[in-house]
Amino acid sequence: MYEFQALEASTSGSKDDAFYTHTLSSEEQSAAQRKPQSIKREPLVFFIMRLNLRAVLLLLIVSVAVITFCIYMRCDAFSFSPEFVRQLGRRQTSETGLLHATQSLAAPLQDIECSINQEYSIHCKRDENANEVYVPFSFLRQYFDVSGAVSSSGGGAGIESPKFNWMHSTAKVNLPKGKYDTRGVFMYFENYNVEVRDRVKCISAAEGVPVSTQWEKRGYFYPTQIAQFALAHYSKNLTEPAPRVHVLEDADSNQLEWSTPKTSNMSRIWHHKFNTSIVQFETTIGYESAISIQLNQTLDLVLSVDLLLVTNSSSLMVTVLNRDNKHRYNLHYIAAELLLSVQESNIYYGLGTGALNKWRHMTRDLHIDVQKGIVMGDKRSPLKVRRSDLEVLSIAFLGIGFYDNLTLSTSNHLAHFYDAAEWFVHNQDHKSGGWTNPVRRSLNGFAELRPGWISAMGQGHAISVLARAYWHSGGDERYLRAAALGLQPYRVYSRDGGVLAQFMDKYYWYEEYPTTPASYVLNGFIYSLLGLYDLNSTAPGKIAREAGKLFAQGMYSLKKMLLLYDTGSGTSYDLRHLSLGVAPNLARWDYHATHVNQLLLLATIDSDPLILQTAERWKGYMFGKRAKHN
Amino acid sequence: MYEFQALEASTSGSKDDAFYTHTLSSEEQSAAQRKPQSIKREPLVFFIMRLNLRAVLLLLIVSVAVITFCIYMRCDAFSFSPEFVRQLGRRQTSETGLLHATQSLAAPLQDIECSINQEYSIHCKRDENANEVYVPFSFLRQYFDVSGAVSSSGGGAGIESPKFNWMHSTAKVNLPKGKYDTRGVFMYFENYNVEVRDRVKCISAAEGVPVSTQWEKRGYFYPTQIAQFALAHYSKNLTEPAPRVHVLEDADSNQLEWSTPKTSNMSRIWHHKFNTSIVQFETTIGYESAISIQLNQTLDLVLSVDLLLVTNSSSLMVTVLNRDNKHRYNLHYIAAELLLSVQESNIYYGLGTGALNKWRHMTRDLHIDVQKGIVMGDKRSPLKVRRSDLEVLSIAFLGIGFYDNLTLSTSNHLAHFYDAAEWFVHNQDHKSGGWTNPVRRSLNGFAELRPGWISAMGQGHAISVLARAYWHSGGDERYLRAAALGLQPYRVYSRDGGVLAQFMDKYYWYEEYPTTPASYVLNGFIYSLLGLYDLNSTAPGKIAREAGKLFAQGMYSLKKMLLLYDTGSGTSYDLRHLSLGVAPNLARWDYHATHVNQLLLLATIDSDPLILQTAERWKGYMFGKRAKHN
Repeated sequence: MYEFQALEASTSGSKDDAFYTHTLSSEEQSAAQRKPQSIKREPLVFFIMRLNLRAVLLLLIVSVAVITFCIYMRCDAFSFSPEFVRQLGRRQTSETGLLHATQSLAAPLQDIECSINQEYSIHCKRDENANEVYVPFSFLRQYFDVSGAVSSSGGGAGIESPKFNWMHSTAKVNLPKGKYDTRGVFMYFENYNVEVRDRVKCISAAEGVPVSTQWEKRGYFYPTQIAQFALAHYSKNLTEPAPRVHVLEDADSNQLEWSTPKTSNMSRIWHHKFNTSIVQFETTIGYESAISIQLNQTLDLVLSVDLLLVTNSSSLMVTVLNRDNKHRYNLHYIAAELLLSVQESNIYYGLGTGALNKWRHMTRDLHIDVQKGIVMGDKRSPLKVRRSDLEVLSIAFLGIGFYDNLTLSTSNHLAHFYDAAEWFVHNQDHKSGGWTNPVRRSLNGFAELRPGWISAMGQGHAISVLARAYWHSGGDERYLRAAALGLQPYRVYSRDGGVLAQFMDKYYWYEEYPTTPASYVLNGFIYSLLGLYDLNSTAPGKIAREAGKLFAQGMYSLKKMLLLYDTGSGTSYDLRHLSLGVAPNLARWDYHATHVNQLLLLATIDSDPLILQTAERWKGYMFGKRAKHN
Repeated sequence: MYEFQALEASTSGSKDDAFYTHTLSSEEQSAAQRKPQSIKREPLVFFIMRLNLRAVLLLLIVSVAVITFCIYMRCDAFSFSPEFVRQLGRRQTSETGLLHATQSLAAPLQDIECSINQEYSIHCKRDENANEVYVPFSFLRQYFDVSGAVSSSGGGAGIESPKFNWMHSTAKVNLPKGKYDTRGVFMYFENYNVEVRDRVKCISAAEGVPVSTQWEKRGYFYPTQIAQFALAHYSKNLTEPAPRVHVLEDADSNQLEWSTPKTSNMSRIWHHKFNTSIVQFETTIGYESAISIQLNQTLDLVLSVDLLLVTNSSSLMVTVLNRDNKHRYNLHYIAAELLLSVQESNIYYGLGTGALNKWRHMTRDLHIDVQKGIVMGDKRSPLKVRRSDLEVLSIAFLGIGFYDNLTLSTSNHLAHFYDAAEWFVHNQDHKSGGWTNPVRRSLNGFAELRPGWISAMGQGHAISVLARAYWHSGGDERYLRAAALGLQPYRVYSRDGGVLAQFMDKYYWYEEYPTTPASYVLNGFIYSLLGLYDLNSTAPGKIAREAGKLFAQGMYSLKKMLLLYDTGSGTSYDLRHLSLGVAPNLARWDYHATHVNQLLLLATIDSDPLILQTAERWKGYMFGKRAKHN
């Protein structure tokens, strides 16, 4: 549009165009100023003959120079009044309809001081003709907390012009693909990569679940995070294509030619109890005696193996190459009470001494194990390793032990899922039914939560995991029993070690953080409800009814309290403003998006229009829409 | 700052300045294009001799024209790449530190499309060198609901540069001048001019109080408005200088030479009961027989008189001149059941037939009476009359009656105040204790309130008036009794005809609008509390205790519920979002300012830091401050 109008102006220019204002370089200005001197030096006859030509040129240049100079110097006497310029603009518009072009050619924007609420000033631009002031985005970004960026185009002056993309919120809304189904994907967790997060120290080799450093640097098991790890893998298993699975050695139909040093021994034997062949190995101490196999496997970076180590000097070692920088890493899985330890290129994961002489199925994402090792070794500027750059060079066994089903695959989501489900079975407090958080947790304004606190979000998430494990395993009662016991804290007030609160002595609430007074974190509450819904959907009889009752009680509260979170332009994260009498703790956009996503999901299982209407309005807030004022 | 930098650039310009881009008029362009032709027509000898001079001029003009033309045509081949210009900018900065000046001279802002949340586009400006995008304020105004205007300076190009004033809110915060005192100014109501409001039809001559048209066009008595009228005048009486009072005629020490037609009669007689002289008049029908006095009184436009009319054809007539347009208005105060009626320049106010044979003290603001008459006569484009333009030309009495103390003064606030206080004494529903609203009131989403509803704000305001009247009158029990009876609706639920609601079955609330479900309008609630405080401060014994109990109950609720209104960037007007499950009804800035003003006032009588801290935070919202997000 704009180019077209500018073109018109330059071809259909009339006398009025001469009043465009100009900018002129200082070189041109000095050229204009030199002119009078050169005239004096020329003979009169030439001067007269040249007058015609030179008059045009001189008049032109001098006028341009004077106008420009006057504008720069704010020289009132010589400049045209704004009123005059405006009249001119109007006349042109009515004559040729070229106001837009006139403005953009004639009046470069002026600088104008912009006083913000009489508190401070910023530099703005003004288009006096169009009666418009332009405000710099760098100011708007911080004042209104909006985002924006110029879209990169091919080289700047390319054919496609650059565009500025104003984003009220950079967070993403996930529309549910259909009615929520406990047996299916959890929320949109197929997009989650829990183990990649910086606050995940590593995946414990002893447990196969993430270790968090979020609130305590030395690392601890955080039930909420472990459940999200499980739910992400459960969901990925449903949404991703089936993995490529490469069974390296099962002592049966898949066998490899292992390099076995003379002092070492490897044999395939029949395991009567398992009714399958397994591999037995025995080596002396020192890696040179390990039985090993050379590989050049890329992409298939998830290793799994059934392993039994007999002595605590036994281990499994995997050597991985970063093809980008030719760096080699040795991943050691050792029978020691150790989480993660790094010595130069040797990265040690401990399987725990309790693992000795016990079969265990171990599943390791070698990319994650390398990356977490690198971070451990260089916390300040750890190298980011691309998954596609990694190559498995060798696998080796050392010491005395047995193994079977040594496999490399692109993924093994269900193995991760079940590792986590097992963790919940084995790490529940049998008295309270809670999966306790072993760290202090301090919420601004509230009394600190002491280690051992239970989170309704953690309980709900764990129950969502266990309900899926119960269903997916075809009815393993251990999962069901753990899930049912996990309901218990929903009925116990926070002050008594549970997660229950009551809003205005009226509405029951399940607390993500069981603070005193209550904090009423919204997203954690809804996650706690999803756990109840999941158990209600999968458990038999009495357990389903119990979960259903707690779910109904929570949904009732949610509908009564949901609007408490609505600020008319966003949401608050919790209700600490009501509990503590302080400013609302506004939800940043990604939490706000979580609220929207959760409500959209709930709307697929609860037809109360309040849920969907609120979700839609809250979605609108992400695009700058606001509730009306009176 | 900026001018200074631009100046520097134009005096210290280097070769690099030549790369500034230019705009050029089409006249200049065609001049440049004509040049080659004129060269061919000139003899060679002149051409060579001129070469030196012309070379400079031509090179200059042609290069300017080509560059400009190329930019207009987006002619890639001839334009400098942005990268080159950037390099140049960097070089200059390091050499001379003039980046800012360079940019503003060299690179006029480019147009850039700005895509708003991928929903629609607006035109922005871009300064590529400074990596800044400028957004038009006309967009920001509607998107963020902010205000702004260029401050007018002396002619635009004057010495003082214009400034753009960004105003997050245009509303005003009124800081309390000290501890709130019931005997003093009410809030900041000395700034209120109730009778001037468009929604005030007129001041009833029968009652001396405003008649509202806010919710019903034919006009009705709106207790809240009448109380504000009273409180404004009570407050003005305390803050304004004492009025100039000009007693025209009191049949005693002040006497005028009245023009008395032959058929008429006027005499000064002794009133035994009042123990003072009064004027008796008797005229035939027709204005030519009126007894009258000519005046040329300006500014003293508040007329007061003690008047007794005997027949319903009797009246008081005041003729007023608009000195600006020489228009005359005859204000007739007649003994009729009539609010306001206009026939050309005759404006009739009815005193009511009940006024016959009864003394009444009447106080009229002639400016208001003229203005409301003009509006009544020409609703579409009524003339605005300036107070300073009005002149009282004459006062006349017609028919049969008596009068005394005919006075003109600059103001008579206490008379207006007591007129309203009397209205509350005489218009209270003795069963409910309420001052009922005789109109339907429809709040979006709620069932309509039917005529006869009572407002806690109206009750509180009325009690504030009556408490002051009781105190100021030195203890007139009628005022006290009415105020005490006015407490009754505070104890009766809305559904039973009162104004009481309960939030979450827990906190008592006094409803400005007794809706079902409750609406919890904040500002009305606080006004209802001020009434209770006022009565508690002025009434004796039991009544004070009753008011105090209701006040304490309300303050308790206020502290528990105040944060429900806090959106983190403003306040909501009510809690209809919680009652109805809809979007919050955000308070527009002037209501938000009212919230702030009310809290600042309450903070002077309640030391709970919650009140003052919240007020201060809410004040910050008016300057664009926001609560933090997590």
